[in-house]
Amino acid sequence: CHRKGAAICVGLDPVYDRLPPPLRQASSPHDAREAAEAIYQFCSQVLEVVAPLVPAVKIQSACFERYLWPGVKAYHCLISHAKSLGLIVIADAKRGDIGASSEHYAAGCLADRDYDPPFGASDLASPDALTVNSYIGIDALESFLKVAAAQGKGLFVLVRTSNPGSDVIQSLQLSDGRSVADAVAELVSGVGSRPEYIGQSGFSLLGAVVGATKPTDAARLRQLMPKQILLVPGFGVQGGSADDVRCCFNEDGVGALITASRSILYAYESTPDEDWRQSFEQATLQMKNQISTSPTAT
Amino acid sequence: CHRKGAAICVGLDPVYDRLPPPLRQASSPHDAREAAEAIYQFCSQVLEVVAPLVPAVKIQSACFERYLWPGVKAYHCLISHAKSLGLIVIADAKRGDIGASSEHYAAGCLADRDYDPPFGASDLASPDALTVNSYIGIDALESFLKVAAAQGKGLFVLVRTSNPGSDVIQSLQLSDGRSVADAVAELVSGVGSRPEYIGQSGFSLLGAVVGATKPTDAARLRQLMPKQILLVPGFGVQGGSADDVRCCFNEDGVGALITASRSILYAYESTPDEDWRQSFEQATLQMKNQISTSPTAT
Repeated sequence: CHRKGAAICVGLDPVYDRLPPPLRQASSPHDAREAAEAIYQFCSQVLEVVAPLVPAVKIQSACFERYLWPGVKAYHCLISHAKSLGLIVIADAKRGDIGASSEHYAAGCLADRDYDPPFGASDLASPDALTVNSYIGIDALESFLKVAAAQGKGLFVLVRTSNPGSDVIQSLQLSDGRSVADAVAELVSGVGSRPEYIGQSGFSLLGAVVGATKPTDAARLRQLMPKQILLVPGFGVQGGSADDVRCCFNEDGVGALITASRSILYAYESTPDEDWRQSFEQATLQMKNQISTSPTAT
Repeated sequence: CHRKGAAICVGLDPVYDRLPPPLRQASSPHDAREAAEAIYQFCSQVLEVVAPLVPAVKIQSACFERYLWPGVKAYHCLISHAKSLGLIVIADAKRGDIGASSEHYAAGCLADRDYDPPFGASDLASPDALTVNSYIGIDALESFLKVAAAQGKGLFVLVRTSNPGSDVIQSLQLSDGRSVADAVAELVSGVGSRPEYIGQSGFSLLGAVVGATKPTDAARLRQLMPKQILLVPGFGVQGGSADDVRCCFNEDGVGALITASRSILYAYESTPDEDWRQSFEQATLQMKNQISTSPTAT
């Protein structure tokens, strides 16, 4: 992240109806293959613009799964494309299931394609990290952890999400005074501190999602998870500001990856006369400037 | 469910390495398309055997996603096949994300294929119900609820899962004495009781997953969610017995769907000399007998 000057992640959440008109005119939303191809083209152009500017991208699986298997093919091809541009790729699929099923998800969503059992599609690159949901239990993460540890990959457990209604479960108060999110954070910190999960950087391969829209909680969660890299979505359109995310970095100014999606992808909507490719660049540079001038986040 | 004599659901969790030898000999696990086709063929034969015997099947998405887009295609085709046999189909994908992404998941995982926007693959049937994870918040379910209410479908929220490690989060005690699972149950019950979500049967389209391996909790959760249909996995191999699941039914002996996967799918492994198609039937009839002779579950 230091190489590109800021711990910023561009989120790819493509929505067909918001694609630039030329891409929509060349395809039909009533055909899953054409729609998947259009969102793939759009995201590919974003990737090529932002690759020199940011270290990482987060690709939202839901946007692609909407278009059934043509969408899933586009999703995996986009991960490969991003990897070929030297980007760190976070697959935002929020998977989670009990033991045997977690093993299947780990193989399909995270493992290298020549992982046992190998796949015909062995030339496909797999992502560097995956978002996972741990409500089912920490044991449900073991298969993901096994793949991640063997292959040098990462996981981000949902701890405190950026949506307005996340309080109803995550902020429930436990009998010992902690919140549910605090308890999940401590579980993540505990499991993630096993020596085999700690990398050369001192950070664990087991990271956490902490929304940019919850600054009050973020400072405490940062303390509860000293070895976790925090993936911080919700910057920009969802309301998170550079001030809000400052506390997600540790005292050395590292350990967080701030993510903006819609504010970059759809920046061109407010400047329709400009080249939309250029709008990705301007919006990314603007975010980069906001984050890097924030006192501790360099 | 009354028509077929028992509230039983067969879970399809196909694993390539456990397929009957003839199916493995005709395919390679190193080719995603061949492996996906083999597990599709296996599951299709299970469907044809069990369709006259049980009202519902649950199809585990992870097993198919493992084989990338050929697997996802096989998954959707299997849903269509099950629907064509008159089965109720529960898609076990445990999806959950914040607002906009939930809308995409609802469209891809649950909605009819001619839902707005329609798809080229409009002859594909979509499932009747979907499992969802609500850790992110109940607001994250709104898109799923909208599709379900408009199209007469159902949702099963993970409340109490069947895995051994589910206690670490779900059994945490809140300051008001409830467990986290109890709190999620009350949220599900509250949202699910809105009049627009209550069907002619008196049950809500918003159901809940309560594992067969947690009988102590199940009785309380049944009371906390009087209008919820409970999807009860974990019968058989995972350890849930007919006695354990009795309390998942309401006082009228309805309102639960007991699911067994491995004990039916892999029954042939213990009787290798018999026709494996016949073993599905025997294992299903055996489970049906166990459940229906349980006092309240008729």
